[in-house]
Amino acid sequence: MKNFTYLASTKVLFGKNRVAEIGKEILPYGKKVLLAYGGGSIKKNGLYAKLIEVLGASGIEVVELSGIQPNPRIESVREGIRLCRENDVQFILGVGGGSVIDCIKAISMGVHYQGDAWDFFIRKAKIEKVLPIGSVLTLAATGSEMNGNTVISNESTQEKRASGHDSLRPQFSILDPTYTFTVNKWQTAAGVVDVMSHIFEQYFTLDKGTFVQDAMAEGILKTCIHYGSILLNEPDNYEARANLMWASSLALNGLTGTGKLAGDWSTHNIEHEVSAIYDLTHGAGLAILFPVWMNYVLDEKTAPKLAQYSRNVWGVSNPDDIEAAKEGIEKTRSFFSSLNMPATLADVDIDGSKVDAMAEGACKYGAIGMFKKLDIDAVKEILIKSL
Amino acid sequence: MKNFTYLASTKVLFGKNRVAEIGKEILPYGKKVLLAYGGGSIKKNGLYAKLIEVLGASGIEVVELSGIQPNPRIESVREGIRLCRENDVQFILGVGGGSVIDCIKAISMGVHYQGDAWDFFIRKAKIEKVLPIGSVLTLAATGSEMNGNTVISNESTQEKRASGHDSLRPQFSILDPTYTFTVNKWQTAAGVVDVMSHIFEQYFTLDKGTFVQDAMAEGILKTCIHYGSILLNEPDNYEARANLMWASSLALNGLTGTGKLAGDWSTHNIEHEVSAIYDLTHGAGLAILFPVWMNYVLDEKTAPKLAQYSRNVWGVSNPDDIEAAKEGIEKTRSFFSSLNMPATLADVDIDGSKVDAMAEGACKYGAIGMFKKLDIDAVKEILIKSL
Repeated sequence: MKNFTYLASTKVLFGKNRVAEIGKEILPYGKKVLLAYGGGSIKKNGLYAKLIEVLGASGIEVVELSGIQPNPRIESVREGIRLCRENDVQFILGVGGGSVIDCIKAISMGVHYQGDAWDFFIRKAKIEKVLPIGSVLTLAATGSEMNGNTVISNESTQEKRASGHDSLRPQFSILDPTYTFTVNKWQTAAGVVDVMSHIFEQYFTLDKGTFVQDAMAEGILKTCIHYGSILLNEPDNYEARANLMWASSLALNGLTGTGKLAGDWSTHNIEHEVSAIYDLTHGAGLAILFPVWMNYVLDEKTAPKLAQYSRNVWGVSNPDDIEAAKEGIEKTRSFFSSLNMPATLADVDIDGSKVDAMAEGACKYGAIGMFKKLDIDAVKEILIKSL
Repeated sequence: MKNFTYLASTKVLFGKNRVAEIGKEILPYGKKVLLAYGGGSIKKNGLYAKLIEVLGASGIEVVELSGIQPNPRIESVREGIRLCRENDVQFILGVGGGSVIDCIKAISMGVHYQGDAWDFFIRKAKIEKVLPIGSVLTLAATGSEMNGNTVISNESTQEKRASGHDSLRPQFSILDPTYTFTVNKWQTAAGVVDVMSHIFEQYFTLDKGTFVQDAMAEGILKTCIHYGSILLNEPDNYEARANLMWASSLALNGLTGTGKLAGDWSTHNIEHEVSAIYDLTHGAGLAILFPVWMNYVLDEKTAPKLAQYSRNVWGVSNPDDIEAAKEGIEKTRSFFSSLNMPATLADVDIDGSKVDAMAEGACKYGAIGMFKKLDIDAVKEILIKSL
């Protein structure tokens, strides 16, 4: 087990109607809040009205930023920064899924920075003074509600880039599973895949001796598999929504990655290239790419870990590591299909015309991956096998 | 899943030689520190000298409180409070296991309180202003390094009582597994039992729908079982010490108890009565009592959860819940025996003469337990079956 520092400082208010407590969580930071959200869904389901009511009751003044899109754009970030500066905002509240929360993190780091916010994503600027943020989660998927990471898209350069800092962890996140009852089947399934992918990315490494982390990771994966199927037919099953929501936060708050040199985020990177060009739902892209990646990286060195996954998560009993790994990969693929996730890029109308550009983009800063290093040709092969 | 608030704000610095970083963790709070520890073991293994060196290098002045005993006494707490007041101490650093960390929490809450610190434990005083604390852990057992709980003994009243508050969570805890290499077999085994007991106490409830918590709890239990055996023969196995240490913190930082109405701490309570009178190692007492408690509470209502434990942790395949539960309980008992933990109170020279007093003490505030309610007669029966 490698040395690590673990800090998951976000206060989680989990359960029904916790939004009623939001005033006293925000007031220590100020009375002027940027309320950021996406499309109009929170206006339809009553959450927007409830928020305006409870914030008002606490004497909190609201400035609004709406229309934040999936794969949030740098333009929304710039607009949010402008609003914060013009209105002397002291706290940013994001209401939505990972896209909204990622967007407010980028706003948070940019408010006190004189240059353009994209600078943080191309490593031209360092995160220093930030505005405190909080979130009300409406989609179980990205884990952004409990970590300091953000991913922003830049359409003008066709790039999707990450940034992050401990200071960008939300001060609090409200996780009310009932807000996810209306998430449609496609987004729910994509969320399940996204949560599982976050675990995969920290689980599939060559580190030795991380038994407790792996055992907890396997528990989170089993949770996703168990409730993913249930949610297909029972979208308003509270128990299923609650387990998936808590799993989504635990999957990417640092817990399962402790004690490891680093995760293997290559599939994530490749998917970012795909969705930067095609605007595909992140989880759907991962459902296509992950089984292909698992098969591609399977060799004598990686087989023991892939076999451990197959045995502990899927109950595979094959004593041969390579064979057990293959069985687990096949079970993963068919589970994703059972959630009606796409199995190939063709399923989502993506052809091979931009494979070269995507592979080059994924390897812009060199070969990617830890479990197995992937150069441009390897990424190209994975993309071609995914067509 | 019940509503819950989760906050595990302690920064964990895990791994080899993290104590070198302690200066910059303390300095934000002040330059005058109470250094609290137990017997002289940290002087023998070089940790004391290292600490004095790194604290001195950061310009931090040290006031010492030594001699804190297992099952820490209220007298040590009072002495620590006196030292903090007289020396205008700004931060308390505890170096040791749960006893030392529990002791500094009690000191922390008492410094700014005008009455006697025991008042907090008999619910006569409310925790308000506290001194910030940090810990360097030298024993994997109690989980005190990541939570706000404390248990203190009062010899004059033969009581052992708990208190706690979120503000008592250590600001940081340094978890260096190498400091536990010299922990003897008895204390190591008692630590393993203690960690498992913390999981049991949060796992064995009648709550429904806490799949993700249970799955993680089962992972931590498997970690204890796997490495407990290894440590019997390889006390300086870093991987084993590291996994057990991280498991001990995760077992009682709130994580596995989220979403449940409450845990069942009755076995813990009963053991506290035993060790308040006989000064028995907490984990050894739990090793005796837990299998007896499990058998005692086993009925149609509790069998499904006990069977889940048996199947998921011990691989029991019996399809009948009652039978599966019994097999798991037996495996638990023999695992504890394999660690050379006592199986009966007689094994540690405790007879039945004080059973009545202990049962009355455990039920001082009424019947105990959630998984199954235990009145004085029930506790008496468990103690008698443990003789």
